[in-house]
Amino acid sequence: MPIIKGPQAFPRAEFLRRLTLVKAEMGSLEIDSLVVGNASDITYLTGYTAKSGYVPQAIVVSLMDEEPTFILRRQDAPAAVHQTFMDHGKIIGYPEALIGNPDKDGFDAVIDFLNEIGVAGRGVGVQLGYLTSRSADKFKARLRKARIVDCTHSVAWIRMLKSDLEIAMMRDAAAIADAGIVKASEVIRSGVREADVMAEVAAQLARGANGKVGTDLASMYFCSSPRTGTCHIRWSEDVIRDGSQINLEIGGVRHGYVSAIMRTFSVGTPSDRLRRVHEAEVSGLEAALEKVRPGATCSDVANAFYRTIEKAGLQKDSRCGYAIGINWSEPTASLKAGDMTELKPNMTFHLMLGNWIDEDFGYVISETFRVTESGCEVLTKSPRRLFEL
Amino acid sequence: MPIIKGPQAFPRAEFLRRLTLVKAEMGSLEIDSLVVGNASDITYLTGYTAKSGYVPQAIVVSLMDEEPTFILRRQDAPAAVHQTFMDHGKIIGYPEALIGNPDKDGFDAVIDFLNEIGVAGRGVGVQLGYLTSRSADKFKARLRKARIVDCTHSVAWIRMLKSDLEIAMMRDAAAIADAGIVKASEVIRSGVREADVMAEVAAQLARGANGKVGTDLASMYFCSSPRTGTCHIRWSEDVIRDGSQINLEIGGVRHGYVSAIMRTFSVGTPSDRLRRVHEAEVSGLEAALEKVRPGATCSDVANAFYRTIEKAGLQKDSRCGYAIGINWSEPTASLKAGDMTELKPNMTFHLMLGNWIDEDFGYVISETFRVTESGCEVLTKSPRRLFEL
Repeated sequence: MPIIKGPQAFPRAEFLRRLTLVKAEMGSLEIDSLVVGNASDITYLTGYTAKSGYVPQAIVVSLMDEEPTFILRRQDAPAAVHQTFMDHGKIIGYPEALIGNPDKDGFDAVIDFLNEIGVAGRGVGVQLGYLTSRSADKFKARLRKARIVDCTHSVAWIRMLKSDLEIAMMRDAAAIADAGIVKASEVIRSGVREADVMAEVAAQLARGANGKVGTDLASMYFCSSPRTGTCHIRWSEDVIRDGSQINLEIGGVRHGYVSAIMRTFSVGTPSDRLRRVHEAEVSGLEAALEKVRPGATCSDVANAFYRTIEKAGLQKDSRCGYAIGINWSEPTASLKAGDMTELKPNMTFHLMLGNWIDEDFGYVISETFRVTESGCEVLTKSPRRLFEL
Repeated sequence: MPIIKGPQAFPRAEFLRRLTLVKAEMGSLEIDSLVVGNASDITYLTGYTAKSGYVPQAIVVSLMDEEPTFILRRQDAPAAVHQTFMDHGKIIGYPEALIGNPDKDGFDAVIDFLNEIGVAGRGVGVQLGYLTSRSADKFKARLRKARIVDCTHSVAWIRMLKSDLEIAMMRDAAAIADAGIVKASEVIRSGVREADVMAEVAAQLARGANGKVGTDLASMYFCSSPRTGTCHIRWSEDVIRDGSQINLEIGGVRHGYVSAIMRTFSVGTPSDRLRRVHEAEVSGLEAALEKVRPGATCSDVANAFYRTIEKAGLQKDSRCGYAIGINWSEPTASLKAGDMTELKPNMTFHLMLGNWIDEDFGYVISETFRVTESGCEVLTKSPRRLFEL
């Protein structure tokens, strides 16, 4: 029996709107077909969130066709039928013989499809920047008569500007992230294993908030004393002790969309140094948010942060954040000095002020915000406290 | 202050043993230096498990040097000092200017290091199969005087044969996976939201088993009616109902090592069809495990399964499993017809018998096993039941 369509996270009209934007870009690039293999871009254009991207798969957007065609491993095709807005006929499962085969893989099925629809003499967009050299060479060799155009980040730049429906999804994701911070503040205690804290936090992120479940678990990092100078450790086998500091980074997820947040926790009285850094960073955060409005640049926002913390004698080496949306970070604009990307309404950013100052000392705070018509809406709502527990 | 070393998951001698094997392979490939950027290979050779691999990073193994050198983003260097067995001086943090820079990235820092140690006229192994074409071209262009050898899977084939210490780690991971199955069987009930089940399961996988915490959360899939014909959906927003079937796939994690398991659950009495498929698949599973011994091939094991289920009128399109270890699957041998890889003691496999028969109907069961001196040790211990709840 065919699988039934599941409930869609967005109406069909929303996906067609997104495709219209992509097709306009294809027109200006003079390409008739666009091959999109990046998992976040596929989610954006189809609604597909199943995790099958560890083998080759791609959608093909054609100017001749309202809906894209999704070519993926046959065993994953039912998930594509169930989750996406497209007709059943737009899902093509390629055979298992292309898995673990040294000579051919799923990209051969994608190329077969392109050759079937006819691309000789025409422009074909390919995300070359995401392909291994072997796969890129295959597209070039097997589509010799087509004109291949690198479109690595074309869809990413389009999805940077969210619709109001997407913003609503990110608000829901932000509420889930906030619920994770509340849970962390309830369970971080001296004598508790770090893993037990993260068990509770992960559970909360799945349960969700306001009656809306988390639809996935994003990356999470619990970097505690003596590891507060690190940023990407899941958690350790340690037990939390009096005097421990914890730098927590989590994200809430709704149908692929992530809102992220960082907060710092102190078990017992924080050191003077930690308190001073916290105060300087919160001032910097507020200064950065005040700069957010259409027409300002990413660089303006970052510099407002940098200049403010400099007054307190602090520096931060790394960028102040990045565009955020499907599957966390987007490969487009960064909140950093010199990034002249102009802010526009419904762009969303993770203002990420993690500051790993010494090898053995760091501090984190962050918010997910959107640009509004006149300023800024902070989606994450947790208090900007140094949590003392 | 420098960050202190954390407790190591393996003794120094174990890492040196692994490096000796890699260096022997380097000798036979006539390369003096090996660049390893794959995250699982880095964990294998250093103990590093932090999640910084979304930006370029690599270790360089040199025949001239006992310990590898780890070149990674400066803000992640403290985690490398803390987690790995190497001396502080073997960790090189590259500057933030290489992040989000269109002209240069972290691989330029890796290439700078290679040019410093001197590779002109010498062989350099690079994992070309994991690199984008742009990165591969950069290695070739900037190391023009060296002889570049593709070593994509060289370390993966070495780590396929585990030490007893690694097997102990996978046993612990398997116990965590089993605890996840117990938890699922306790919480899957009619009227419960799928997300709430996975909240509890994820929490259990973090809490661990036998006093040993889970050190990470692996991928997890909860594919319920009407989605039992799908395999890679996290979970849905649905509430479990009487008559629901659930196909669950989870993994336990210890210091990067994953043991995976799948089980099928029925809320209420299972259909006759589901019961027949379960019985055939368990027979096939047992037939496959009986074939496991040193000298048998992956193909032998797979064929034992296929021939057994054929007797019950069943087929399975996809492979019966794959080598498993750090970060789940290894890109080496598959349990499939025609894979003539010979089994050797302390190889570990995920015997993955998920069978997505129709678009709207599938069944799953799996075990993680190791090859012993004379046969097979199944690491996952959950009962091979069709769980009726």
